[in-house]
Amino acid sequence: MSAWLDAVRWNEEGLVPVIAQAEDTGEVLMLAWMNREALALTVEEGVAVYWSRTRHKLWRKGEISGHRQIVREIRLDCDGDAVLLRVSQEGGIACHTGRRSCFYHRLEDGQWQIVEPVVKAPEAIYGA
Amino acid sequence: MSAWLDAVRWNEEGLVPVIAQAEDTGEVLMLAWMNREALALTVEEGVAVYWSRTRHKLWRKGEISGHRQIVREIRLDCDGDAVLLRVSQEGGIACHTGRRSCFYHRLEDGQWQIVEPVVKAPEAIYGA
Repeated sequence: MSAWLDAVRWNEEGLVPVIAQAEDTGEVLMLAWMNREALALTVEEGVAVYWSRTRHKLWRKGEISGHRQIVREIRLDCDGDAVLLRVSQEGGIACHTGRRSCFYHRLEDGQWQIVEPVVKAPEAIYGA
Repeated sequence: MSAWLDAVRWNEEGLVPVIAQAEDTGEVLMLAWMNREALALTVEEGVAVYWSRTRHKLWRKGEISGHRQIVREIRLDCDGDAVLLRVSQEGGIACHTGRRSCFYHRLEDGQWQIVEPVVKAPEAIYGA
Protein backbone atom coordinates (compact mmCIF):
# COMPACT_ATOMS: atom_id res chain seq x y z
CA MET A 1 0.00 0.00 0.00
CA SER A 2 2.93 2.33 0.65
CA ALA A 3 5.23 0.61 -1.82
CA TRP A 4 5.21 3.78 -3.91
CA LEU A 5 6.67 5.65 -0.92
CA ASP A 6 9.36 3.00 -0.54
CA ALA A 7 10.32 3.54 -4.18
CA VAL A 8 11.53 7.03 -3.32
CA ARG A 9 15.20 7.17 -2.45
CA TRP A 10 15.04 9.34 0.64
CA ASN A 11 18.37 10.93 1.55
CA GLU A 12 20.18 10.37 4.85
CA GLU A 13 17.90 12.98 6.43
CA GLY A 14 14.81 11.22 5.12
CA LEU A 15 14.12 13.94 2.56
CA VAL A 16 13.72 14.21 -1.19
CA PRO A 17 13.99 17.38 -3.31
CA VAL A 18 10.71 18.37 -4.96
CA ILE A 19 10.33 20.64 -7.96
CA ALA A 20 7.03 22.48 -8.35
CA GLN A 21 6.12 23.39 -11.91
CA ALA A 22 3.10 25.40 -13.04
CA GLU A 23 0.96 23.09 -15.15
CA ASP A 24 -0.37 25.91 -17.31
CA THR A 25 2.73 27.93 -18.15
CA GLY A 26 5.40 25.29 -17.51
CA GLU A 27 7.28 27.71 -15.27
CA VAL A 28 9.48 26.15 -12.63
CA LEU A 29 8.13 27.75 -9.48
CA MET A 30 10.31 26.49 -6.66
CA LEU A 31 12.35 23.69 -5.21
CA ALA A 32 11.52 22.46 -1.73
CA TRP A 33 11.85 19.27 0.27
CA MET A 34 9.50 16.57 1.49
CA ASN A 35 9.81 13.77 3.96
CA ARG A 36 7.74 10.63 3.74
CA GLU A 37 4.86 12.09 5.72
CA ALA A 38 4.80 15.27 3.61
CA LEU A 39 4.59 13.31 0.37
CA ALA A 40 1.88 11.05 1.76
CA LEU A 41 -0.11 14.09 2.93
CA THR A 42 0.38 15.80 -0.43
CA VAL A 43 -1.30 12.86 -2.12
CA GLU A 44 -3.99 12.57 0.53
CA GLU A 45 -4.88 16.27 0.56
CA GLY A 46 -4.20 17.08 -3.09
CA VAL A 47 -2.18 20.16 -2.17
CA ALA A 48 1.57 20.49 -1.73
CA VAL A 49 2.81 19.80 1.80
CA TYR A 50 6.55 20.27 2.25
CA TRP A 51 9.03 19.74 5.04
CA SER A 52 10.59 22.97 6.23
CA ARG A 53 14.28 22.32 6.83
CA THR A 54 14.66 25.59 8.72
CA ARG A 55 11.60 25.25 10.93
CA HIS A 56 11.86 21.47 11.18
CA LYS A 57 8.18 20.90 10.64
CA LEU A 58 5.59 20.16 8.00
CA TRP A 59 4.76 23.17 5.92
CA ARG A 60 1.41 23.39 4.23
CA LYS A 61 2.34 25.72 1.38
CA GLY A 62 -0.15 28.59 1.29
CA GLU A 63 -1.62 28.11 4.75
CA ILE A 64 -0.84 31.76 5.54
CA SER A 65 -0.49 33.33 2.09
CA GLY A 66 -3.38 31.46 0.53
CA HIS A 67 -1.05 30.56 -2.32
CA ARG A 68 -1.67 26.85 -2.21
CA GLN A 69 -0.46 24.48 -4.88
CA ILE A 70 -3.18 22.19 -6.16
CA VAL A 71 -1.41 19.05 -7.28
CA ARG A 72 -2.32 17.82 -10.75
CA GLU A 73 0.43 15.28 -11.25
CA ILE A 74 3.30 13.73 -9.32
CA ARG A 75 6.38 12.42 -11.10
CA LEU A 76 9.44 10.54 -9.89
CA ASP A 77 12.75 10.51 -11.74
CA CYS A 78 14.71 7.58 -13.11
CA ASP A 79 16.73 6.91 -9.98
CA GLY A 80 13.97 7.81 -7.56
CA ASP A 81 15.75 10.64 -5.83
CA ALA A 82 13.82 13.64 -7.14
CA VAL A 83 10.10 14.43 -7.38
CA LEU A 84 8.31 16.73 -9.78
CA LEU A 85 4.91 18.20 -8.97
CA ARG A 86 2.81 19.73 -11.69
CA VAL A 87 0.57 22.17 -9.89
CA SER A 88 -2.07 24.79 -10.25
CA GLN A 89 -0.56 27.70 -8.33
CA GLU A 90 -3.25 29.63 -6.47
CA GLY A 91 -2.85 33.38 -6.80
CA GLY A 92 -0.21 32.80 -9.47
CA ILE A 93 2.44 33.48 -6.83
CA ALA A 94 4.76 30.80 -5.49
CA CYS A 95 7.48 32.93 -3.89
CA HIS A 96 7.33 34.51 -0.45
CA THR A 97 8.72 37.67 -2.08
CA GLY A 98 5.46 38.01 -4.01
CA ARG A 99 6.88 36.84 -7.32
CA ARG A 100 5.43 34.14 -9.56
CA SER A 101 8.53 31.97 -9.26
CA CYS A 102 11.32 31.71 -6.72
CA PHE A 103 13.85 31.57 -9.57
CA TYR A 104 13.91 35.30 -10.19
CA HIS A 105 17.68 35.85 -10.27
CA ARG A 106 19.31 35.44 -13.66
CA LEU A 107 23.07 35.28 -14.13
CA GLU A 108 24.13 38.12 -16.43
CA ASP A 109 27.79 39.00 -16.96
CA GLY A 110 28.82 37.44 -13.67
CA GLN A 111 26.07 38.98 -11.58
CA TRP A 112 22.69 37.76 -10.36
CA GLN A 113 20.11 40.19 -11.67
CA ILE A 114 16.50 40.28 -10.54
CA VAL A 115 14.43 39.65 -13.65
CA GLU A 116 10.94 38.97 -12.32
CA PRO A 117 8.62 41.64 -10.93
CA VAL A 118 6.88 41.53 -7.57
CA VAL A 119 3.26 40.75 -8.40
CA LYS A 120 1.99 41.46 -4.89
CA ALA A 121 3.95 43.02 -2.03
CA PRO A 122 4.77 40.57 0.78
CA GLU A 123 3.12 42.94 3.28
CA ALA A 124 -0.12 42.57 1.36
CA ILE A 125 0.27 38.80 1.36
CA TYR A 126 1.35 38.18 4.93
CA GLY A 127 0.03 41.29 6.69
CA ALA A 128 2.11 44.23 7.88
CA MET B 1 34.84 38.27 -9.53
CA SER B 2 33.39 35.08 -8.03
CA ALA B 3 30.91 36.92 -5.83
CA TRP B 4 28.10 35.28 -7.81
CA LEU B 5 29.45 31.88 -6.75
CA ASP B 6 29.54 33.01 -3.12
CA ALA B 7 25.85 33.97 -3.42
CA VAL B 8 24.96 30.30 -3.83
CA ARG B 9 24.16 28.57 -0.55
CA TRP B 10 26.18 25.39 -0.99
CA ASN B 11 25.08 22.60 1.32
CA GLU B 12 27.32 20.94 3.90
CA GLU B 13 28.78 18.79 1.10
CA GLY B 14 29.48 21.86 -1.02
CA LEU B 15 26.69 21.03 -3.47
CA VAL B 16 23.56 22.68 -4.80
CA PRO B 17 20.61 20.97 -6.55
CA VAL B 18 20.24 21.98 -10.18
CA ILE B 19 17.09 21.64 -12.27
CA ALA B 20 17.51 21.39 -16.04
CA GLN B 21 14.55 22.60 -18.06
CA ALA B 22 14.17 22.44 -21.84
CA GLU B 23 14.00 26.02 -23.07
CA ASP B 24 11.78 25.14 -26.02
CA THR B 25 9.14 22.87 -24.50
CA GLY B 26 9.45 23.88 -20.85
CA GLU B 27 9.82 20.23 -19.86
CA VAL B 28 11.66 19.56 -16.63
CA LEU B 29 14.39 17.22 -17.81
CA MET B 30 16.31 16.24 -14.70
CA LEU B 31 17.62 17.20 -11.32
CA ALA B 32 21.33 16.86 -10.66
CA TRP B 33 23.95 18.45 -8.43
CA MET B 34 26.81 20.86 -8.89
CA ASN B 35 29.70 21.90 -6.73
CA ARG B 36 31.38 25.26 -7.08
CA GLU B 37 33.77 24.07 -9.77
CA ALA B 38 30.98 22.46 -11.80
CA LEU B 39 28.92 25.65 -11.81
CA ALA B 40 31.95 27.75 -12.75
CA LEU B 41 32.78 25.34 -15.60
CA THR B 42 29.16 25.34 -16.75
CA VAL B 43 29.34 29.09 -17.20
CA GLU B 44 32.80 28.96 -18.74
CA GLU B 45 32.00 26.19 -21.22
CA GLY B 46 28.34 27.01 -21.86
CA VAL B 47 27.30 23.39 -21.37
CA ALA B 48 26.04 21.71 -18.22
CA VAL B 49 28.77 20.22 -16.04
CA TYR B 50 27.46 18.41 -12.95
CA TRP B 51 28.99 16.75 -9.94
CA SER B 52 28.34 13.04 -9.84
CA ARG B 53 27.56 12.09 -6.25
CA THR B 54 27.96 8.39 -7.02
CA ARG B 55 31.20 8.64 -8.97
CA HIS B 56 32.55 11.55 -6.92
CA LYS B 57 33.77 13.47 -9.92
CA LEU B 58 32.81 16.13 -12.41
CA TRP B 59 30.40 14.89 -14.99
CA ARG B 60 30.26 16.59 -18.35
CA LYS B 61 26.70 15.71 -19.30
CA GLY B 62 26.70 14.19 -22.78
CA GLU B 63 30.41 13.44 -23.01
CA ILE B 64 29.59 9.82 -23.85
CA SER B 65 26.00 10.03 -25.10
CA GLY B 66 26.46 13.24 -27.06
CA HIS B 67 23.36 14.54 -25.30
CA ARG B 68 24.91 17.75 -24.06
CA GLN B 69 22.89 20.54 -22.55
CA ILE B 70 23.66 23.91 -24.10
CA VAL B 71 22.98 26.44 -21.38
CA ARG B 72 20.80 29.37 -22.39
CA GLU B 73 20.06 30.82 -18.98
CA ILE B 74 21.04 30.25 -15.35
CA ARG B 75 18.69 31.16 -12.52
CA LEU B 76 19.08 31.17 -8.76
CA ASP B 77 16.17 30.99 -6.35
CA CYS B 78 15.13 33.40 -3.61
CA ASP B 79 17.20 31.84 -0.86
CA GLY B 80 20.10 30.86 -3.08
CA ASP B 81 19.93 27.13 -2.49
CA ALA B 82 18.64 25.91 -5.83
CA VAL B 83 19.70 26.57 -9.42
CA LEU B 84 17.62 26.36 -12.61
CA LEU B 85 19.24 25.88 -16.00
CA ARG B 86 17.29 26.59 -19.12
CA VAL B 87 18.95 24.45 -21.75
CA SER B 88 18.86 23.32 -25.31
CA GLN B 89 18.94 19.54 -24.95
CA GLU B 90 21.01 17.96 -27.71
CA GLY B 91 19.35 14.91 -29.19
CA GLY B 92 16.17 15.76 -27.28
CA ILE B 93 17.13 13.11 -24.72
CA ALA B 94 18.19 13.95 -21.16
CA CYS B 95 17.76 10.59 -19.48
CA HIS B 96 20.23 7.72 -19.56
CA THR B 97 17.27 5.42 -20.21
CA GLY B 98 16.84 7.10 -23.61
CA ARG B 99 13.82 9.16 -22.63
CA ARG B 100 13.36 12.90 -23.12
CA SER B 101 13.05 13.53 -19.39
CA CYS B 102 14.17 11.66 -16.29
CA PHE B 103 10.75 12.27 -14.72
CA TYR B 104 8.99 9.48 -16.54
CA HIS B 105 7.21 7.84 -13.63
CA ARG B 106 3.78 9.24 -12.81
CA LEU B 107 1.88 8.37 -9.65
CA GLU B 108 -1.41 6.76 -10.61
CA ASP B 109 -3.64 5.10 -8.02
CA GLY B 110 -0.77 4.51 -5.64
CA GLN B 111 1.64 3.16 -8.23
CA TRP B 112 4.46 4.68 -10.26
CA GLN B 113 3.60 4.15 -13.90
CA ILE B 114 6.01 4.71 -16.76
CA VAL B 115 4.41 7.34 -18.96
CA GLU B 116 7.20 8.43 -21.30
CA PRO B 117 8.47 6.32 -24.20
CA VAL B 118 12.08 5.41 -24.85
CA VAL B 119 13.11 7.60 -27.76
CA LYS B 120 16.38 5.79 -28.36
CA ALA B 121 17.53 2.54 -26.78
CA PRO B 122 20.37 2.98 -24.28
CA GLU B 123 22.41 0.39 -26.21
CA ALA B 124 22.21 2.65 -29.23
CA ILE B 125 23.29 5.64 -27.16
CA TYR B 126 26.10 4.12 -25.13
CA GLY B 127 27.10 1.16 -27.30
CA ALA B 128 26.30 -2.46 -26.60
